[in-house]
Amino acid sequence: MTATGLTLLSRAAEPRSVSRLAASAAAVDGGVMSNQEVLAWLDGRRRAHAHRVERVPFAALRDWAFDERTGDLRHASGRFFSVHGLRVRSDFGPVPAWSQPIIRQPEIGLLGIALRDFDGVPHLLMQAKPEPGNVNGVQLSPTVQATKSNYSRVHGGSAVPYLRLFRRSDPRSVVADVLQSEQGSWFLHKCNRNMIVEVGPEAEAGEDFAWLTLGQVNALLRQDNLVNMDARTVLSCLPDWRRDGMRRALHADQEIRSWITRRRAEHEVEVVPVGLAEVAGWHRTADEVAHERALYFKVVAVDVSSDRREVPSWTQPLLEPYGTAVVALFVRRVDGVPHALLRARAEPGFHNVVELGPTVQCMPENYAHLPAAGQPPYLAEALIRAEGAGFDVVLSEEGGRFRNAQSRYLIIEVGDDFPDPPDDFCWVTPCQLDELLRYNHQVNVQARTLVAALRTL
Amino acid sequence: MTATGLTLLSRAAEPRSVSRLAASAAAVDGGVMSNQEVLAWLDGRRRAHAHRVERVPFAALRDWAFDERTGDLRHASGRFFSVHGLRVRSDFGPVPAWSQPIIRQPEIGLLGIALRDFDGVPHLLMQAKPEPGNVNGVQLSPTVQATKSNYSRVHGGSAVPYLRLFRRSDPRSVVADVLQSEQGSWFLHKCNRNMIVEVGPEAEAGEDFAWLTLGQVNALLRQDNLVNMDARTVLSCLPDWRRDGMRRALHADQEIRSWITRRRAEHEVEVVPVGLAEVAGWHRTADEVAHERALYFKVVAVDVSSDRREVPSWTQPLLEPYGTAVVALFVRRVDGVPHALLRARAEPGFHNVVELGPTVQCMPENYAHLPAAGQPPYLAEALIRAEGAGFDVVLSEEGGRFRNAQSRYLIIEVGDDFPDPPDDFCWVTPCQLDELLRYNHQVNVQARTLVAALRTL
Repeated sequence: MTATGLTLLSRAAEPRSVSRLAASAAAVDGGVMSNQEVLAWLDGRRRAHAHRVERVPFAALRDWAFDERTGDLRHASGRFFSVHGLRVRSDFGPVPAWSQPIIRQPEIGLLGIALRDFDGVPHLLMQAKPEPGNVNGVQLSPTVQATKSNYSRVHGGSAVPYLRLFRRSDPRSVVADVLQSEQGSWFLHKCNRNMIVEVGPEAEAGEDFAWLTLGQVNALLRQDNLVNMDARTVLSCLPDWRRDGMRRALHADQEIRSWITRRRAEHEVEVVPVGLAEVAGWHRTADEVAHERALYFKVVAVDVSSDRREVPSWTQPLLEPYGTAVVALFVRRVDGVPHALLRARAEPGFHNVVELGPTVQCMPENYAHLPAAGQPPYLAEALIRAEGAGFDVVLSEEGGRFRNAQSRYLIIEVGDDFPDPPDDFCWVTPCQLDELLRYNHQVNVQARTLVAALRTL
Repeated sequence: MTATGLTLLSRAAEPRSVSRLAASAAAVDGGVMSNQEVLAWLDGRRRAHAHRVERVPFAALRDWAFDERTGDLRHASGRFFSVHGLRVRSDFGPVPAWSQPIIRQPEIGLLGIALRDFDGVPHLLMQAKPEPGNVNGVQLSPTVQATKSNYSRVHGGSAVPYLRLFRRSDPRSVVADVLQSEQGSWFLHKCNRNMIVEVGPEAEAGEDFAWLTLGQVNALLRQDNLVNMDARTVLSCLPDWRRDGMRRALHADQEIRSWITRRRAEHEVEVVPVGLAEVAGWHRTADEVAHERALYFKVVAVDVSSDRREVPSWTQPLLEPYGTAVVALFVRRVDGVPHALLRARAEPGFHNVVELGPTVQCMPENYAHLPAAGQPPYLAEALIRAEGAGFDVVLSEEGGRFRNAQSRYLIIEVGDDFPDPPDDFCWVTPCQLDELLRYNHQVNVQARTLVAALRTL
């Protein structure tokens, strides 16, 4: 990397806009677009991107097929993603061994939000983007949301707008740039590059794009199924604009790092890739690959089309969960400093065995057949306390891979008398999370949504 | 994790001994044992641990065998490690595709050094440990150097001394605790937990152990083949005791993290496990698995025995490189602040594609058949400048897996007029390395040795 001359910088130097994020968060309306204009723009984009998504049998998939030998579901080009099987032995959670289908997508995609000053207030360039798995078509997405197949044009489609802002960015204008994992129960080793880059006035919003203040985005995040997963994970990587004076915590940073290391070293998770046809307890019909007890999720196929000639139609598989997940974060104030109860979770698809997840993260139906001791810790308590939650919003997981995958995200304040948690759990301050989020694979995607949510309170 | 009451700590809180590391580094003699006593102790331990290591044909291995189907070399118990094949496609380095044998050892081992105050000066509990692959039998090792097979007693051997100090440590006495990779060209996804723990007066040195000051260990590190690889990697995870006033750098911390992320996202490395018998260009004889051009390394078998009845004899495979590696770090001062030239290296066995390595890291013989453009960058320059190097020591890689694996470690000071390096390289300060070393898989094992070496200058 080329140094700009031989000038020493402060090691903590950041792009100028970072110091003005608080002003952007305080701007809850106005800016480039009023809130009313934003809603009208989103409505317009919904109409413009109206499309049909229909369940079809696997036989109707074009360019996708099950491998004759392994049963794996793949694209003819070998790109995009594929569905394989996984045999798992794990000491995390109540079930010691199982098999399951899993999505493999080895390429590292790019999720990026451009940041530009308008009258000294940083605005985020957000995109109205349709995805076939979304319950409601269009959601608010990052400036760029591209797989490597996208941006290397495997589709033969058009170039990804704004990609150049991220791939050719000046190193000193990069606010955040970190690899983060996605759902470790559904993806094997999936990760995306999460970027936030400060740009100049040459970046203008196309018709699918809008410059919004952080205050506006935060308000939209409190609406059901509006800010998509990719936007949420990038938002969580923004430096926390409320970090002043948060130099104290129940546990020193080194203690938290040591706790994560210990959990990584001590959890035993063995993951063996197998053919999709070999996955015990799952069966394939003409329409779906599903579990014999209709639990967890199923793999289905969809056909996506619209009435507009210029929009190509296509078919693809999607993973469709049964039920709505419950994803809750317990928060407690100690001497005025908020602490979130994180769990060191071992998910089979994680690169480094363990990442920090929310207090509760599960699909309750999947545990219904297990005895009380097999229920996820704090689930019952989260549901009881959900009524008074500070944040209670249903949000979608990535609609390009998951169909109707919704989670109820909760932030629940608990009292000082909260009993000491088991060793899998730890109280971590938002500033400590901020620090962990600068390094790859420390905080899982569900917890990242809750980090973004926490900053809206 | 249990909080000690509800008291907030400074997030930067560290065990008390960390503030006294400088005193320990300044104590170059004396302490618990004088330097003369240390040398006498090491001589005594060499005599006590005298053993024979003989090359034997594979057929003489006990409990190890080649799998009939895959050709993989495994232990009958399924534990310890195994030798497989790997097919690699990589855009790092001059060779775009190759196959090679690789060691697989999925368990996370523990490397730990205990730290104890004597008269207010922290001392490190070092071990005199024999390994079959060492050129000289006994080397100076960490307090604990144990695979999970070791400490879960798969050997049926005796308990690992001092293990309890690390596995049952008080979270607030942990100085460092991080997962670090090992040789990514020889190991697939190998990593060890590197720990430094402050202990009390209850920890006493057994006959294979000695309490040494950091100053004494640093002096020993400047002797050929004395401080082993496991000790060096743990030492590199000690907080840098010279970190005061080092808040400036050519690149802000965020720039360095972004550079690593970019390299991870952009390097294309595809690694496909294959059977050892399928590795193209390599052949197996009765005595070795070797490359057809006698390059890189070979897999051999050894029989280890001694004349003392109480010491069990055993056989095992070892990986034996051809030649001595050159591992060099270029260092340049900018405005009084030292900067090391690190390279973002993609090695096939890395968990996260890329880690920071030294300026030069190679076995020159392996490149002799390639044209000038295929030679490793800065190799020629390192060899020319080696004469005046500030650090020039031949050190061994881990003797439990590698036979006669020696590397010439060099630290070479370069001038202010050093030309801008290619994009794979970046100038990083020792304090920035210190920060990166708190997180797993950022700095490779060769660079970690040089971090420890840099602190002896």
